[in-house]
Amino acid sequence: MTEDPITVKPSEDVVFAFEKLMKHKISALPVEDNGKLLGIVTATDLGHNLILDNYKLGTTVEQVMVKDVATIAPEETLKDAIDKMYQYGQDDGIINQLVVLEDDKIVGIISDGDIIKVLKEL
Amino acid sequence: MTEDPITVKPSEDVVFAFEKLMKHKISALPVEDNGKLLGIVTATDLGHNLILDNYKLGTTVEQVMVKDVATIAPEETLKDAIDKMYQYGQDDGIINQLVVLEDDKIVGIISDGDIIKVLKEL
Repeated sequence: MTEDPITVKPSEDVVFAFEKLMKHKISALPVEDNGKLLGIVTATDLGHNLILDNYKLGTTVEQVMVKDVATIAPEETLKDAIDKMYQYGQDDGIINQLVVLEDDKIVGIISDGDIIKVLKEL
Repeated sequence: MTEDPITVKPSEDVVFAFEKLMKHKISALPVEDNGKLLGIVTATDLGHNLILDNYKLGTTVEQVMVKDVATIAPEETLKDAIDKMYQYGQDDGIINQLVVLEDDKIVGIISDGDIIKVLKEL
């Protein structure tokens, strides 16, 4: 997993959040306030809606974030991670990242790519 | 894999390519002309450079595409795919998709997420 992931505040503008994602070459930002995980926004969703002009000017992260965040604990297995990615996906899709929570604190983020990297080492 | 993936022509503007990626919620576009694979552009790279204003106005796909495309044949194994993602990655990273070629024709694209989906079924 990536430790101490970059996050965004709920009050930020969606354009700011998208720029942050692009600047850091990351695919998702956990939304947090005072250390509490409130939601997640992804580059795929923000980019899609910004390009199609689906957001009103001044739309905030809080207004568009996914609130039902898929999370996992550090001690869970790789199989648990894959199962959750599948479980939270829509139709036959998967979600591409899980927020790693320890005692309600965001400690990391794990992506499908991270799992592939581990598989290479097995 | 995703069959018959969306592609882009080398002469297109990078802004057009990025909009196409966002519109279709995809992470990479093979660059092709007359059915021949010439390169690949990714949402991560284009988005990063567009946000940082690294491209001159009128920059084309051909000027920025990665020409050494990681490809795989339909009959290769999942392990081959994972190995190639690792082999083409920089530092300890992986690349997130491979173009599937059959007789030099683009027949699909396979992503790290596609591999996780298959693992779930094993």
